[in-house]
Amino acid sequence: MSETTMATDTDLTPLTAEQTYELDRRHVFHSWSAQAQITPMVVTKAEGSYVWDQDDNRLLDFTSQLVYTNLGHQHPRIVAAIQEQAATLCTVAPQHANATRSEAARLIASHTPDGLDKVFFTNGGADANEHAVRMARLHTGRPKVLTTYRSYHGGTQLAINMTGDQRRWANDAASSGAVHFFGPFAYRSPFHSSSVEEEGERALAHLEQTILFEGPDTFAAVVLESIPGTAGVLVPPPGYLRGVRELCDKYGILLVADEVMAGFGRAGRWFAVEHDGVVPDLLTFAKGVNSGYVPLGGVAISPHVAATFDDRAYPGGLTYSGHPLACAAAVATIRAMEDDRVVEHAAALGDEVFGPRLQDLADRDPWVGEARGVGAFWAVELVADKATREPLAAYPGSSPQMAAVVAACKKRGLLPLAVVNRIHLVPPLNASASQVHEAVDVLGEALAEARAG
Amino acid sequence: MSETTMATDTDLTPLTAEQTYELDRRHVFHSWSAQAQITPMVVTKAEGSYVWDQDDNRLLDFTSQLVYTNLGHQHPRIVAAIQEQAATLCTVAPQHANATRSEAARLIASHTPDGLDKVFFTNGGADANEHAVRMARLHTGRPKVLTTYRSYHGGTQLAINMTGDQRRWANDAASSGAVHFFGPFAYRSPFHSSSVEEEGERALAHLEQTILFEGPDTFAAVVLESIPGTAGVLVPPPGYLRGVRELCDKYGILLVADEVMAGFGRAGRWFAVEHDGVVPDLLTFAKGVNSGYVPLGGVAISPHVAATFDDRAYPGGLTYSGHPLACAAAVATIRAMEDDRVVEHAAALGDEVFGPRLQDLADRDPWVGEARGVGAFWAVELVADKATREPLAAYPGSSPQMAAVVAACKKRGLLPLAVVNRIHLVPPLNASASQVHEAVDVLGEALAEARAG
Ligand SMILES: Cc1ncc(COP(=O)(O)O)c(C=O)c1O
Ligand SMILES: Cc1ncc(COP(=O)(O)O)c(C=O)c1O
Repeated sequence: MSETTMATDTDLTPLTAEQTYELDRRHVFHSWSAQAQITPMVVTKAEGSYVWDQDDNRLLDFTSQLVYTNLGHQHPRIVAAIQEQAATLCTVAPQHANATRSEAARLIASHTPDGLDKVFFTNGGADANEHAVRMARLHTGRPKVLTTYRSYHGGTQLAINMTGDQRRWANDAASSGAVHFFGPFAYRSPFHSSSVEEEGERALAHLEQTILFEGPDTFAAVVLESIPGTAGVLVPPPGYLRGVRELCDKYGILLVADEVMAGFGRAGRWFAVEHDGVVPDLLTFAKGVNSGYVPLGGVAISPHVAATFDDRAYPGGLTYSGHPLACAAAVATIRAMEDDRVVEHAAALGDEVFGPRLQDLADRDPWVGEARGVGAFWAVELVADKATREPLAAYPGSSPQMAAVVAACKKRGLLPLAVVNRIHLVPPLNASASQVHEAVDVLGEALAEARAG
Repeated sequence: MSETTMATDTDLTPLTAEQTYELDRRHVFHSWSAQAQITPMVVTKAEGSYVWDQDDNRLLDFTSQLVYTNLGHQHPRIVAAIQEQAATLCTVAPQHANATRSEAARLIASHTPDGLDKVFFTNGGADANEHAVRMARLHTGRPKVLTTYRSYHGGTQLAINMTGDQRRWANDAASSGAVHFFGPFAYRSPFHSSSVEEEGERALAHLEQTILFEGPDTFAAVVLESIPGTAGVLVPPPGYLRGVRELCDKYGILLVADEVMAGFGRAGRWFAVEHDGVVPDLLTFAKGVNSGYVPLGGVAISPHVAATFDDRAYPGGLTYSGHPLACAAAVATIRAMEDDRVVEHAAALGDEVFGPRLQDLADRDPWVGEARGVGAFWAVELVADKATREPLAAYPGSSPQMAAVVAACKKRGLLPLAVVNRIHLVPPLNASASQVHEAVDVLGEALAEARAG
């Protein structure tokens, strides 16, 4: 048998949008959905901050798909790196070493907080969190982990049991060792606080009480999204993460920062923990590390945790740990981010465009209860009543009003990310200021139309 | 900010093998290993059935890395498809539809056993098994699963707890609902049977007893590698899988076939369950689906299980479900397998070359207790004594003799997969007959040298 069958003209048959849709409905089982109740949009083309749908409508992609195409679609440097790596060496098993994996690990370690310079590669965010918790459990010898209610940590069994949001409910057998607590959220304070500062203090007191009544010695780790993302871009009060770090040190608990969504520039810093000057013991990443062009995630490991596995085998792995093609995309992504100062650009988008424009919208629009965020990471909280703060959709569902806002955005060429009663604006980090202005303009018009309709 | 920074000459800095190794040791955390005790081989190049190491030695890759490069390294059609997809549309989020994902799902469904024509895509084998069990639990409303001791199902928390081999030990909190039983293994029968037929019957009786004493109504699924792979290519007695299917039907338990390693041609059939004419309710795959060129796995779903999630949301997902680049590699892999009759070739390699050559080796060599397998999926069981069948390395470790065999193979240009007291011969499915002859020759010489040394 020949090993070198030549490529046919192409193996990728072009399908029409109709054929794509028809085959999708017949053969593709979609996540988080009732299969008979969905009508997926067919994405036929994508470029930079834009995607095109089945009717050739161009949409400004302020979802970054699932908040991961941090350098937009079809970035030429990432595409070139994937093609070059594919031409050279598509894959090497994890037990060997290879150049692209080494270089990706070096580049990642050059940006992670101080000392976190060993990288265990995974395929995505869920398995990154699973392995981080495993490392923490084996390092501390303790079983339980603390996570917040307003959080998402992934779809595998342990990750979904650590998750705080409603996606956990159907999967939870209460046997994963995850204990949930409330994080700070000044706009809807679980602690009846009257200022952001007070919210931070009370949230820390609540965490310490939880630790004390659960038993400090039972906890391997506090696992936190540095900025809870899908839960609503809940930027924590200054000092909160530092306070969590101190509680962890006090009780011998490791701090795992889940930076799957917030990391790699999304929050206007390489990692969101930098906003509070915090160094976690373990940091998990995925998504932005390579703009999601090839599945990749990982755990950045502090020296003291890594040392636990110097002479004792780490009991974990996966077939595609450190996959060269995924690492090639990471190398190009990180180099492009460095060369083009993408993180600084994202920070400026937040400070100079998103911040003032959304504050203005919040001041003017009767449905905008609060707009919050940082960098290219924003959520607009929609309420039926600004005084009572009654959400425009009841947790965890949607509402006709929310559907109307989304429809009105799409009609105007904006693809927004709707989560419960919020519109998240999470464009590629290299979106232009004028694209952000356009998106905020469209959102304002869409809110007015939905309210009128 | 420009979204179209041009590619520099290349973002993939060439590193020497020394630099690669040095950066690997500094920054890469390896799976299943004590980090200070490993010296990874640097793979600098790969082509077809060969890889090259740091000293430019060419090695015949009879590991297929981790039993996944089913079409060998750098297959031109898969490389071309990846490059073409990269040039067009690298990534689309799971909630949308896209042509390559639709086509991959259609192609996969055209080869899965009867009726399993909906595909939920994951990143690899572990998450495929996690989601299959979730579907089974929600479909049946029952918590527990049955798996065999001699098995591996992946590295995430639930998957590793389902795993039967020693990799589970450090991770097991006995809270995952996995109940382990013994599968058939005639050469080392747990049932004291004296023939393959008896082994199959006794293994089924043992499974039924286990179900009865654990409580039939407590089980969502029996999760089985159709041919346990890493555990030793334990081809089940004819009728065993059919018997398991019958027990499942009798007790309302779903059958999940883990075909991550055995599937996509490895066993000389598209799926190994075909050997026994069995249709599982759920079938998990990864590895061979796209020769591992881009991380991909998935669950093929029967209509009755899929229907459970027609009007009830499936509570599971992952960012890269149905990643277009991974699906492009699957499309090209499956088309190449069809066009080149790769599955038939693998079957013939097993029947005509591996089978007779390894039987001959077993007859002649004092260390070969048994050689077993099918297709391109073989294990050679090494023993210190053919009468007592004492393994050449005690479970779960290795031994100086095993290390000597591996070293002698590598010296002669063969990269074998050593697992405890076995040498697994698992080449690309499109390896040539003469490459298989060469590998068996080398193994014979290596055994003699190791015994002499
Ligand atoms: C904060 C966070 N952690 C983990 C995950 C899970 O990542 P993945 O979907 O790649 O498994 C996500 C995904 O959205 C996330 O936002
Ligand atoms: C039978 C089987 N199931 C599941 C897995 C896990 O797959 P992955 O490493 O892609 O998570 C493997 C990996 O070797 C396997 O052999």
